[in-house]
Amino acid sequence: MNYPNKIKKEYHKNINYANRGMDLESIINEANEYYLEHDLALIYKKPTPIGVVKVSYENNRQIINKAYFATQSTLDYNGLYKGKYIEFDAKNTESKTSFPLNNVHLHQIKHIRNVIKHGGIVFLIIKINAQFYLLNGPDFIYFIDNNKRKSIPYEYIKEYGYNLEYNYNKGLNYLSIVDLIGGFENNGKK
Amino acid sequence: MNYPNKIKKEYHKNINYANRGMDLESIINEANEYYLEHDLALIYKKPTPIGVVKVSYENNRQIINKAYFATQSTLDYNGLYKGKYIEFDAKNTESKTSFPLNNVHLHQIKHIRNVIKHGGIVFLIIKINAQFYLLNGPDFIYFIDNNKRKSIPYEYIKEYGYNLEYNYNKGLNYLSIVDLIGGFENNGKK
Repeated sequence: MNYPNKIKKEYHKNINYANRGMDLESIINEANEYYLEHDLALIYKKPTPIGVVKVSYENNRQIINKAYFATQSTLDYNGLYKGKYIEFDAKNTESKTSFPLNNVHLHQIKHIRNVIKHGGIVFLIIKINAQFYLLNGPDFIYFIDNNKRKSIPYEYIKEYGYNLEYNYNKGLNYLSIVDLIGGFENNGKK
Repeated sequence: MNYPNKIKKEYHKNINYANRGMDLESIINEANEYYLEHDLALIYKKPTPIGVVKVSYENNRQIINKAYFATQSTLDYNGLYKGKYIEFDAKNTESKTSFPLNNVHLHQIKHIRNVIKHGGIVFLIIKINAQFYLLNGPDFIYFIDNNKRKSIPYEYIKEYGYNLEYNYNKGLNYLSIVDLIGGFENNGKK
């Protein structure tokens, strides 16, 4: 674990490239790093919350000896873009025909409603059929409030979501779509 | 742990009251819970980041067997208030005469500059001499950029910071000060 700084960096970089096209979280993190480095936006993944069960001390330093991963009560990513509050989650689905709603916890749905109410920009980035879609919060909530289905059909996502640019070299660009939806209280597409 | 809802709530309440006046983090968390319950703002403490060294599986569930606490590269609290992005950190100092700057990491100072540049509201809540002050980000950065000192004198905090209302029953109220500073690009006091 103790690589010198420079080698450590190269190592990380290689990992990122190797993961491209596979791991949604890595793709989003790379996009956020790009936005940060180019001073376009400040968007970070929140650390995964943990429940600590047991700690000990080594050389005056706390070591966690037992803990478990907990679920985030909000969404995983948030930050600041052009003075506005942004929050989103990235969701992967293996299904080719729909996005199962059990991917989103009830407290997260409540939180999405809250962010909309308080004037923030909130959305999901959904990877389905090897495509990336941005589904704006109000359109996500609209579906939930008007359907009894337990999954969002791919057709709805294609119609109301925004297909995001993605390629191997340039990575994922979602801010261009945030520019589109950011100026509207509700959805700009509907 | 399985109290009926009402008793559970009382129980929490008692714990909170017991902690009052002692632990800065509990005081801030209580204020945020109050704001959330009264639908005034959505402000959360980010989970503490950890570095996971070893995991195992018990009944298909991941258990962390070794990990250490890492430092946040941003500030501890962020969220949304009246459509605006807010971020802050809560800092306690035992010194009665100054706030030592080694309480704030270099990457956090860089982040504070970034949030200001991108149009967010960013500040520190400093507990010093049993008083709570909100020091607005631009005033914090102004001090750093114009002084070689390694701590901010209490006089500076009193002059440029905002003394926050706090009492045992009502808790801490910092949003009233955010209302004051939120409308200004720079400080409203200077």
